Amino acid sequence: MGVGEWVRPEIGAMAGYQPGEQPLPGQRVIKLNTNENPHPVPSEVLEAVREAVTAETLRRYPVPDARPAREAAARAYGLDPEQVVVGNGSDDLLTMVLRTFVGSGADVVAPAPTYSLYDTLTAIQGGTYREVPWGVGGSLLIRAIVNADPALVFVTRPNAPLGFACGLDQVAGLCRAVDAPVVLDEAYGDFAADSALPLLDDHPNLIVTRSFSKGFSLAGLRLGLGFARPEVAEQLDKVRDSYNVDALAQAGAAAALDHLDAFRPNTEAIQRERGRLTAALRERGFGVAESQANFVFARAPDGDGRPWYEALKARGILVRHFPEPEELAEGLRISVGTAEDNEALLWALDEIAGK
Amino acid sequence: MGVGEWVRPEIGAMAGYQPGEQPLPGQRVIKLNTNENPHPVPSEVLEAVREAVTAETLRRYPVPDARPAREAAARAYGLDPEQVVVGNGSDDLLTMVLRTFVGSGADVVAPAPTYSLYDTLTAIQGGTYREVPWGVGGSLLIRAIVNADPALVFVTRPNAPLGFACGLDQVAGLCRAVDAPVVLDEAYGDFAADSALPLLDDHPNLIVTRSFSKGFSLAGLRLGLGFARPEVAEQLDKVRDSYNVDALAQAGAAAALDHLDAFRPNTEAIQRERGRLTAALRERGFGVAESQANFVFARAPDGDGRPWYEALKARGILVRHFPEPEELAEGLRISVGTAEDNEALLWALDEIAGK
Repeated sequence: MGVGEWVRPEIGAMAGYQPGEQPLPGQRVIKLNTNENPHPVPSEVLEAVREAVTAETLRRYPVPDARPAREAAARAYGLDPEQVVVGNGSDDLLTMVLRTFVGSGADVVAPAPTYSLYDTLTAIQGGTYREVPWGVGGSLLIRAIVNADPALVFVTRPNAPLGFACGLDQVAGLCRAVDAPVVLDEAYGDFAADSALPLLDDHPNLIVTRSFSKGFSLAGLRLGLGFARPEVAEQLDKVRDSYNVDALAQAGAAAALDHLDAFRPNTEAIQRERGRLTAALRERGFGVAESQANFVFARAPDGDGRPWYEALKARGILVRHFPEPEELAEGLRISVGTAEDNEALLWALDEIAGK
Repeated sequence: MGVGEWVRPEIGAMAGYQPGEQPLPGQRVIKLNTNENPHPVPSEVLEAVREAVTAETLRRYPVPDARPAREAAARAYGLDPEQVVVGNGSDDLLTMVLRTFVGSGADVVAPAPTYSLYDTLTAIQGGTYREVPWGVGGSLLIRAIVNADPALVFVTRPNAPLGFACGLDQVAGLCRAVDAPVVLDEAYGDFAADSALPLLDDHPNLIVTRSFSKGFSLAGLRLGLGFARPEVAEQLDKVRDSYNVDALAQAGAAAALDHLDAFRPNTEAIQRERGRLTAALRERGFGVAESQANFVFARAPDGDGRPWYEALKARGILVRHFPEPEELAEGLRISVGTAEDNEALLWALDEIAGK
C-alpha cells in the first residue's frame, strides 16, 4: 500500500508539463523565454487593478460567472456574453475543453509541432494524443485529421513554437470536415493579422481560446477567454471551477477589454521589432520563418540550438530551447522583447559566434 | 453532428455545481450565505497585495511552483515546503486530488451530509460517488467506508454544512483502515479547536486541504493549500496547472502566512459570535448543533428551511438553503457574521415568526 498504487496509471506514468524557467522576483535577466509582453500594461488597466484591491473585494468571493468581464469581452469582440467562458489563464480553458470532450481512450489530434501542454492534458484524461505533421499541408492535412476520427482537435494559430498562421480558409475547411470540436488556440492572436472569431457564426464546432498573458501584458494575473456557440459554452461551464477567476483578474480583464486601443502601441511596437529581429537573425545565418506571434523561431546556423541556448543563458539572456523533437531542438524560440532586449540578444549572438 | 454527441456522456448528464448566490458589486445585502469572513483582512496583508500590483508583476508569469508562498506555509505550519501544494482556491486542490487518484469507474466515498462539490468532481472524472451517513458513527462508519473499497475518501472537518468536527482519533483510524488516499477538507479548519496536520507524519495516505477564503478573509483572491507527504504532493503537482496561482494571490498568501497572529482577533470574534448565535437561535426554537466552523446549521422550528430562506431574502439577508437531501432542506446554513449582521438576522427571524 502506497502512493504508487493509489495514483491512476496515466498519472503515475507521466512527467508533468515543464514550463519555461521563471527567475525569482528580483533576479536580473533578459527574459525572452516565455513570451511575456515586454511592455508595461497601460496605466488605465493598472489603476483598475489597483483600485480593486480593497479589503471588501478580497473578503468576498468573486462573481462566480465573471459576468461583467464576459460582457466586456462580448462588447470588445462583437459577440454575445453567452458565447464567452472565462479561464484562470487560457491553459485553464484548455483543461475545461479536455474534461468536457475527452474521456478515457478518446483520441485528440493536433497538427505538429505545437504546444506540448495538449499532450499532457490529454494524458491526464486517459486519452490518446496524436500529432499530424503540419508539413503535409492543405487538404491532405485535413484528411489526415479526419481519418484519425478524433474526439477533439487542437490548432494553434499563430502556431507555437514556429509562429506562422495557417489560413483561415484552412480552419474553416477543417471545422466543416471533422465531426468533433476544433479548438483554435489564439494565445498569440493579438499579434496576428486576423482572428478566427468571425468564423464562430458558421461553425458550431469551433472553440477559440485567447490569453491575457501575451497581448495584454497581464501574465501575472492569469486570465484567458474561450469563445464558442452558447450551447458549447454551456457545456464547458459545467466543468469550470465556480470561482476560477479571482476578483482582481476580473477587474483587470474588464478594464483591458474596455481599453483595447490603449494596447495598440505596444502591439505595433512588437510587430515592428519582430520584423527587425527576423531580418537581423537571418543576416546572422539563422533560419527564421515569418511569425504572426510575439516570438520568432530561429533555426541555428549549425542546426543545434542547445549550445546557443546555454551560451545566452551564461550571459543572462533566457530563450527557450526544446530538447525534442529534432525539428525544434535545432533552434531557439525567442520572445520579441523591447528594442533594447533585442539589441542585447543580437550583440550576445555575435559574441557567441566569435564575431 | 452537434454538441450533444461531442460531449462526454458524464458531462452531458450532469448539471454542474451551483455556488451560493453572489450579489453583484454594489448590491446591498447582509450576506450570510457563502461563509465569507465578515472581518476585513489585516492591513499588513492588504498592503502586501497592494504593493504587488505593479506593471512588472502583472506583466510576468507568476512563480510557477509558488515556492515563496509554499515556504511561508511550511514555516507557518511546521512542515516542509515539499509537503505543500498550492491551489487556485481549495476547490482547485480537490480537483487535483480527483484527477490524480480517480479514473473512470472508480469509487469515491464520503460521510454525508458533506460538501456537494465532491459529487460533481467525481462525476466529471467518470467515477462513482457514494455517501455513507455520518449517523452510523465510529468504527461502523470506518467499516462502511473500507467495505466500499474506495479509490479516494473525502472527510470534511469541520463538517459542511453541519459544522461539527469528528474526533482526530477517528480520522487516524480511518487513515489506518483504508488503502486509499483520505482527503481531510479543512476549509473551515481555522475556526476549529484542532487540525489534522500533525497526523501527516504517521499517515502516508492523508491529504489535508485548507482555504484562504474563510479564516483569512481572502475569498476574492482564490488561494488554497494542500498538505501531504512529499511523494503524494509530487503526484498532485503533475496535474496542477503550471501557473494556477496568480502573482497577487501568491503575495497575499505569503503575507497572510507570515502574519498568522494578525488574524487571531477576527477568528476569536467569530468564535464568540458563533456561540452567541447558536444560543440565540436555540432560544427561538431552531435546532443548532455545536459548530467548529464559521457557520451554524439551524433546523427550522417547523422543519422546513425554505420559507425562512425566502422570507430572509425578501428582507435583504442571504442565507443558504439546500433543497435536498431532506435533512438539509429542513434547515438553513447561516454564516457567522459581525455582531451587527447577526443582530439583524435575529431581528428578522423574530419578525418572520410574527413576534
